[in-house]
Amino acid sequence: MNTLLLDSDDVDEYAALGDVIDAVEQAFGAFERGDTQMPAKSYIELPQYNGDFRSMPAYLDTGAWDAAGLKWVNVHPDNPVDHDLPTVLGTMIYSDPETAFPLAIMDGTTLTMKRTGAASAVATDYLAIEDASSLGIVGAGVQSYTQLEAISEIRPIEDIVVSDLDEERVQRFVDAYDDRFDVRAGSIADAGHCDILTTVTPSSEPIVGADDVAGHTHINAIGADAAGKHELADALLETATIVIDDHEQCTHSGEINVPYGEGVLTDADIDAEIGELVTGSKPARTTDTGVTVFDSTGLAIQDIAAAHVVYERALEAGEGHPFDLVGAGDST
Amino acid sequence: MNTLLLDSDDVDEYAALGDVIDAVEQAFGAFERGDTQMPAKSYIELPQYNGDFRSMPAYLDTGAWDAAGLKWVNVHPDNPVDHDLPTVLGTMIYSDPETAFPLAIMDGTTLTMKRTGAASAVATDYLAIEDASSLGIVGAGVQSYTQLEAISEIRPIEDIVVSDLDEERVQRFVDAYDDRFDVRAGSIADAGHCDILTTVTPSSEPIVGADDVAGHTHINAIGADAAGKHELADALLETATIVIDDHEQCTHSGEINVPYGEGVLTDADIDAEIGELVTGSKPARTTDTGVTVFDSTGLAIQDIAAAHVVYERALEAGEGHPFDLVGAGDST
Repeated sequence: MNTLLLDSDDVDEYAALGDVIDAVEQAFGAFERGDTQMPAKSYIELPQYNGDFRSMPAYLDTGAWDAAGLKWVNVHPDNPVDHDLPTVLGTMIYSDPETAFPLAIMDGTTLTMKRTGAASAVATDYLAIEDASSLGIVGAGVQSYTQLEAISEIRPIEDIVVSDLDEERVQRFVDAYDDRFDVRAGSIADAGHCDILTTVTPSSEPIVGADDVAGHTHINAIGADAAGKHELADALLETATIVIDDHEQCTHSGEINVPYGEGVLTDADIDAEIGELVTGSKPARTTDTGVTVFDSTGLAIQDIAAAHVVYERALEAGEGHPFDLVGAGDST
Repeated sequence: MNTLLLDSDDVDEYAALGDVIDAVEQAFGAFERGDTQMPAKSYIELPQYNGDFRSMPAYLDTGAWDAAGLKWVNVHPDNPVDHDLPTVLGTMIYSDPETAFPLAIMDGTTLTMKRTGAASAVATDYLAIEDASSLGIVGAGVQSYTQLEAISEIRPIEDIVVSDLDEERVQRFVDAYDDRFDVRAGSIADAGHCDILTTVTPSSEPIVGADDVAGHTHINAIGADAAGKHELADALLETATIVIDDHEQCTHSGEINVPYGEGVLTDADIDAEIGELVTGSKPARTTDTGVTVFDSTGLAIQDIAAAHVVYERALEAGEGHPFDLVGAGDST
């Protein structure tokens, strides 16, 4: 009985963004309904290598399908310079919940970008104005590409403003998309005055102020992934409608962790969890004014949901690399 | 940059037991010295499938080498009858601690049996009489084979007594080894009167009484792996020298968990952790009389240590199946 091996190119090909966005939306809904299991991430800290490992197991049942698996992922910031490797490397084991058979093992690095883009798309669908056509990107690293790809799946994006201190990165981003969109470099305020803004930087000091955004901008705050990181000024957060993915993760390591820790923001300032918008227990945007912020920390169920799409689509296409890893069940 | 895929046959071939025993012994020593990281196992409970998943991440530094990885493993007791699959299926991701690159992905099912056998061998080396030549096995399931293989690496085993309610299993075991050993079927007391006894049953009621063993028998108690399970009578444990692998795991799910929970055994009855024997901070057996018990629950560092051996040996042999999983570092 074979396990399907899916490399980064396979994941890129079969993580069809429309499907991944649907699956991630269903995962958020299952989370809100209590139909998920997501033990706290386990960390292994390796200061001698300036790195850490995280294990992210999860199970979810959307009603239509269920799925289980685990992502083993790391953050090793010295990798690019010292080892010509990405800072983050992920491996996903995707398992049949009924038997625990490892159905697939796939690259978790590409998967992480896809599911993170998909989360922004889901939030954007509920929180951006209906006819949003302009998108600002602050931080033109690897994640910015899947942000654009995913968000443009659910809004008719035409104009893009990209802002980054590194001009080479900006140029690379512009070159990648100027055949499909009207893309230009701009300041943070230029990006922030788009209908939608996505911030994807590792900043520990807020870089987007209250005056840097339009009165109707929806912001996907993606960059903060550890205590001490934030990208948006307190003054901006204090007046915005704030939607989080998970209370525990967001208050400890998400966009709101610093002001929340300082008491500048409290639970009363958190307007909803994304799952509440999906299930309809809290309302999506109803007016064309007001700033909304989605604090996305990334949930293990997003990875499982994205892996579900990749596995099913690759299987259907007869692609991937079958491998008899466990040597079990071959008599059937 | 390739990840080495190692299937169950590869793991069987390259988990050379002498080396795995050495590596597991070093892992126990590192644990005792505080040179390991082993977050608590995370569980996903799926009562609808009568199963669960466990994620077991770990890092260890023996001084000579360090290693990191994660085993994703399950217990689905209905698998054999309903799905022609083993109850336990494991997948191991073995990672470079310095960069987090997934060096290898290997079958964790065979690996688990090897590292469990190796733990018994390490304990037997410190706790059995020097010239132990007879081995009793209670429970002739899949794990019994690697128990014999590993223990016979470190003591000159000649005679084997195997005891199991299932006569077919006994016969299969006898047939497998009667060309190399003097193997016979026997009662639990027959098995217990050998120099070494290994118990590998899922029993929830003690099956080995105080009178079932010789005055000098060393017992490896392997079967208990969950709250409520135990194989040895309280009267036997109360007079024996008890060595555990880990206090937390043994008192919650190991051989001693039931009497410990009932207050029949207390911390005063636990004579040592196996790591203390390895580092020499507590003495190994010094006399030819007295019953010793090793309560083995299985630590994540044992899996990483065994994976280290498998990976290094397979790499050296140029075997395994290289696969470009993450598509990273190819420019070097």
